[in-house]
Amino acid sequence: MNSERYVRGLAKLKEIDGQAGENVINSLSDIAPDFARLLIEFPFGDIYSRPGLDLKTRELAVVAALTALGNAAPQLKVHIQGARNVGCSEQEIVEVIIQMAVYAGFPAALNGLFAAKEVFAQHPTPPSH
Amino acid sequence: MNSERYVRGLAKLKEIDGQAGENVINSLSDIAPDFARLLIEFPFGDIYSRPGLDLKTRELAVVAALTALGNAAPQLKVHIQGARNVGCSEQEIVEVIIQMAVYAGFPAALNGLFAAKEVFAQHPTPPSH
Amino acid sequence: MNSERYVRGLAKLKEIDGQAGENVINSLSDIAPDFARLLIEFPFGDIYSRPGLDLKTRELAVVAALTALGNAAPQLKVHIQGARNVGCSEQEIVEVIIQMAVYAGFPAALNGLFAAKEVFAQHPTPPSH
Amino acid sequence: MNSERYVRGLAKLKEIDGQAGENVINSLSDIAPDFARLLIEFPFGDIYSRPGLDLKTRELAVVAALTALGNAAPQLKVHIQGARNVGCSEQEIVEVIIQMAVYAGFPAALNGLFAAKEVFAQHPTPPSH
Amino acid sequence: MNSERYVRGLAKLKEIDGQAGENVINSLSDIAPDFARLLIEFPFGDIYSRPGLDLKTRELAVVAALTALGNAAPQLKVHIQGARNVGCSEQEIVEVIIQMAVYAGFPAALNGLFAAKEVFAQHPTPPSH
Amino acid sequence: MNSERYVRGLAKLKEIDGQAGENVINSLSDIAPDFARLLIEFPFGDIYSRPGLDLKTRELAVVAALTALGNAAPQLKVHIQGARNVGCSEQEIVEVIIQMAVYAGFPAALNGLFAAKEVFAQHPTPPSH
Repeated sequence: MNSERYVRGLAKLKEIDGQAGENVINSLSDIAPDFARLLIEFPFGDIYSRPGLDLKTRELAVVAALTALGNAAPQLKVHIQGARNVGCSEQEIVEVIIQMAVYAGFPAALNGLFAAKEVFAQHPTPPSH
Repeated sequence: MNSERYVRGLAKLKEIDGQAGENVINSLSDIAPDFARLLIEFPFGDIYSRPGLDLKTRELAVVAALTALGNAAPQLKVHIQGARNVGCSEQEIVEVIIQMAVYAGFPAALNGLFAAKEVFAQHPTPPSH
Repeated sequence: MNSERYVRGLAKLKEIDGQAGENVINSLSDIAPDFARLLIEFPFGDIYSRPGLDLKTRELAVVAALTALGNAAPQLKVHIQGARNVGCSEQEIVEVIIQMAVYAGFPAALNGLFAAKEVFAQHPTPPSH
Repeated sequence: MNSERYVRGLAKLKEIDGQAGENVINSLSDIAPDFARLLIEFPFGDIYSRPGLDLKTRELAVVAALTALGNAAPQLKVHIQGARNVGCSEQEIVEVIIQMAVYAGFPAALNGLFAAKEVFAQHPTPPSH
Repeated sequence: MNSERYVRGLAKLKEIDGQAGENVINSLSDIAPDFARLLIEFPFGDIYSRPGLDLKTRELAVVAALTALGNAAPQLKVHIQGARNVGCSEQEIVEVIIQMAVYAGFPAALNGLFAAKEVFAQHPTPPSH
Repeated sequence: MNSERYVRGLAKLKEIDGQAGENVINSLSDIAPDFARLLIEFPFGDIYSRPGLDLKTRELAVVAALTALGNAAPQLKVHIQGARNVGCSEQEIVEVIIQMAVYAGFPAALNGLFAAKEVFAQHPTPPSH
């Protein structure tokens, strides 16, 4: 039986990451199925479900951090689309990436913008919110 | 004569970082006065002044990124207070730092929380907004 | 009522980090008490409690990673002592830090060694195992 | 004439990294042949050959560090296989990567797991030890 | 009308990065045209145009930094060719990358060398200086 | 008997880092004396002694990289003074740090400049070259 955290986390994962989130979960099923469960329970069941900060701001903060770190391109793309899924405009996403030029340098911002360009092209019609 | 970018940047720097921003500018006066000017003109005159994303979200994204990078403690503290200066609540700041545990690990989030604790103690009465 | 994960995590935290772990938990009580609970439940209740890798190797891997990242000095010190607490010799700890010179550079290894020197001096009599 | 360090390092390189190690050495022959020699002499001749820590733990520590750093995918894959070559089980490798979720975030652990998945698929029959 | 900074920056961008620089600018035209302008004005118009350090040393320092950071492969390749464009020899570029093994580890240096190998192969006849 | 690499490295260490280099070696004598030897032999005996790039450029590249990485403040300070010891002007050092604002962000450059300010104040009369 799945825990309450798991149920809440799976719903949150679907709300934010949609199909891309399910793909990540599925791709873990052979190498580390336990980690798929932990990924649902902790980030999505425990953290994203917390009150005190709306989902749009959480996703923009994640896009900012992953752009700045610059070493997790697949996750950055998932969360650029995740930001759109929870209602962020393309302009807001682009702005938060540009902001990172100041804090992590121009290469980080450039690579973030090219990730956004790729995601926007793959998902040309953002979900309406 | 100061450029329009400089005038706009200096006003934005004061709005966001207050006295801490001026201290940074002053501390550069002997080692690299040109860089003080560049710091006012580019991050504050060019970037923070852009439309398309409100200042609160920009500051929360910066707190997120500096928490995740974990290698710029003085700037993280300045921007935790900067986030408060532009109207973010302590809860919003704490939440965005906690969110980073997922993306940059628990040590990064812990060090971010301890930075916030220090800033909140030094500036116990946040400016009302 | 505390969850099973919390009880298991708290016991594991005490086993590994001893007083330093409790200090971290206590220092979170005003700024982010929820995060103290999450820290007990996820890293210690979920991860450190997993089978498949002994605690000594887990702690040496954590010392390696924190040495390589080089941006979390307080946590590195806690886990250098944690490694000793679960039975690692000073030589094993020093060796794993030296190994990092190859993968993260000499400054990372040097700062790791100086952290170990400080921890060994503060806790001169390691617990016998 | 090759130095004692070179001879010892080359043997250690072959023991740990096997064909992948030789490929790296060969791929340096045109761009920086001196660096191929330095790579054999220092990491393998000087560091991996040290007493005080067994090869299995050294390799797991390297997998941990490269997973946490997240910016050296080719070397992470070489050392995931290297860990198997010196006797680590797939479970031990997966566990040390999962452990990194706590110290470097979920994206780092995810990318480490996907690297392991790729390596395990390419080398389906691990050498018996 | 373009600012003096823009005109100076565009000339400097062409001098250093040549066609690769123009490609970056063009690839930003749909996703973030403002950022293309900022990229010309600040890094190239403001920073690269400063006196006090010759272009060759600036480019070698950039190659060093991007090699050490290890998370911006496209920009590293652009600046390896940029270093050649402003007169650095292949040997100087290789030496500065090898130097990074000491400060950022062997994987960073290896990935830098492989980037240089790729760039040198693509542009086999460096511009004479 | 010390190896040729050791003798060459120790002379190079003294040339570049002066007293600060000897202090590092001495501070390793209890925790990891072998690492002191390795530090002399590999970075200084093998790398800094290579032809193909002058010492001034090597040191400026190291200052650039350590500024960009932002996680090794003690070593950054040693090499800022090291750059002066081998003949770099204060202006050249400041310029290479400012250049890093573009590639690693303003916080990295700011912390580099403050490190330079501290070093220049401690060693107000640079050695004449």
